[in-house]
Amino acid sequence: MRSVRAFAPGTVANLGPGLDILGLAVTGAGDTVTAERTADREVRIRSSGHPDIPAEPERNTAGIAASRVRDRAAAGSTGISLEIEKGLPLSGGQGGSAASAVAAAVAVNELLGSPLRREELLEPCLEAEAAVAGRHADNVAAALFGGVVLIRSLEPLDVVRLTFPGELLVVLAEPRQSLRTEEARSRLPHSVELSVALAQAAHVGALVAALSTRDWELLRRSIEDRVAEPARAPLLPGFAEAKAAALQAGALGCSISGSGPSSFAFAVGDEPARRIGKAMIEAYRSRDVAATARVCAIDSRGARLVGGQN
Amino acid sequence: MRSVRAFAPGTVANLGPGLDILGLAVTGAGDTVTAERTADREVRIRSSGHPDIPAEPERNTAGIAASRVRDRAAAGSTGISLEIEKGLPLSGGQGGSAASAVAAAVAVNELLGSPLRREELLEPCLEAEAAVAGRHADNVAAALFGGVVLIRSLEPLDVVRLTFPGELLVVLAEPRQSLRTEEARSRLPHSVELSVALAQAAHVGALVAALSTRDWELLRRSIEDRVAEPARAPLLPGFAEAKAAALQAGALGCSISGSGPSSFAFAVGDEPARRIGKAMIEAYRSRDVAATARVCAIDSRGARLVGGQN
Repeated sequence: MRSVRAFAPGTVANLGPGLDILGLAVTGAGDTVTAERTADREVRIRSSGHPDIPAEPERNTAGIAASRVRDRAAAGSTGISLEIEKGLPLSGGQGGSAASAVAAAVAVNELLGSPLRREELLEPCLEAEAAVAGRHADNVAAALFGGVVLIRSLEPLDVVRLTFPGELLVVLAEPRQSLRTEEARSRLPHSVELSVALAQAAHVGALVAALSTRDWELLRRSIEDRVAEPARAPLLPGFAEAKAAALQAGALGCSISGSGPSSFAFAVGDEPARRIGKAMIEAYRSRDVAATARVCAIDSRGARLVGGQN
Repeated sequence: MRSVRAFAPGTVANLGPGLDILGLAVTGAGDTVTAERTADREVRIRSSGHPDIPAEPERNTAGIAASRVRDRAAAGSTGISLEIEKGLPLSGGQGGSAASAVAAAVAVNELLGSPLRREELLEPCLEAEAAVAGRHADNVAAALFGGVVLIRSLEPLDVVRLTFPGELLVVLAEPRQSLRTEEARSRLPHSVELSVALAQAAHVGALVAALSTRDWELLRRSIEDRVAEPARAPLLPGFAEAKAAALQAGALGCSISGSGPSSFAFAVGDEPARRIGKAMIEAYRSRDVAATARVCAIDSRGARLVGGQN
């Protein structure tokens, strides 16, 4: 195989109360990476897909993941060039950095003859994510495996693939505003009151139960984040209004996607989902924030090969 | 009905990472309360079942729960006398105060002609528990409903009844040592580091997932409490040894039951469960703490009537 192309889906991390813990993959846009063997021994970014994405391999999640996979596969002398097609927004809260890392890892592993199992690609992707967006695995694990994931532990890395209802839809709203991941992370408190910690844990547990039992009302009550959302919402004009509008329109919970600025809402049924999306767009607009929204299913497949040439 | 007798099972609360959140009911010992109509308008304790239990109705969880149920049922002028048979240890960490409250609530409701639904008995029991042991619902909800419960919220009260595997056994060890609930609660920190809060939430989520999918290995990894156990274990000589011995003997997790001094371990299979119980007893003994252990199933029925006379 001389050229391999892989796709990784967008993801919603920090799912409600699941800060750094819960993530899910969504259908639709994602990042695509084509990896090719080259004659030298370097990992290079042939095209980074966006002028704002660093072309230096060690500052780019795709480049870092590719290097780490190559090292793990003991193929350190294989030259690799990467072409990145960004389908996801930069710093959008839709797991763009994770998707680039995961697509690169999957493509490079295939290029090298699949020496690593899917699970073994997680750590290289996490290292890439950590280099640019903080050490959290809820985006990369969801992008890699698909579905809904719970990160029980980072050390050792322990990812639980959760049961979820196939009919659950995710309305993903993308306001035209920017919030750097670094800035969003810096707003998190260093410590929380015990009562807040216990409430957060209770909501995570309830959310896991709601997903496994299709209890929509419980799902709605469980999408409550007492830690990250209160810290970040003030940085996101229109979010409070969009959330209120989404819930008013029947959303089964609404919160910030990742560390923002995107926001997400749960829904069941296409018509309600589209209505919720419209309501969110209008609410953002009421605060003079242009926004778009799309209705996604949960992507149960995760990253996958989409082509290649021998 | 002139006399009604109700039983409520013992419970393991603060289940692993589920401080104030997760509880389960166990088969075997429990508290039994007989309620009788009397000619006057008082709620009285006829016999409190143990010399150390207050006979004043307002200092006794059975008395408080009985009064609250009577008030809710708008039967405030009905005289009630209660006889309590304590099957559970006092301040043992096996939900004794909750069981007395729940048994009384169920008995009094039946005595009054069942004006309240089972769910409506929860708040009166919680009020009783709050008066003597802090406002937490993981014992009372588990004793009332049976099974494994998750308290999503106290305000408003929201109890989730979790899916659990019927073959899961609970080894309950009772060391002969005392730890007052008040003292145990006072050791809890007022705040926790964010990383600790997130780890606790991740473990609660993983535990809920493990129970619903019968993933024993995940269950073992999920019984990890970073908040209460580290604060309380130093007050409980022998616990650390008993936990190590339980895990060594194959337990699927081990932690403090309630706020102690009892400890619990999960197991599957009678023989492993008995072996774990023996190992825990020996470990306590190595620290000069006498202990007993019993193997329980999860009590899926919760509180129930066990007799009555017209």
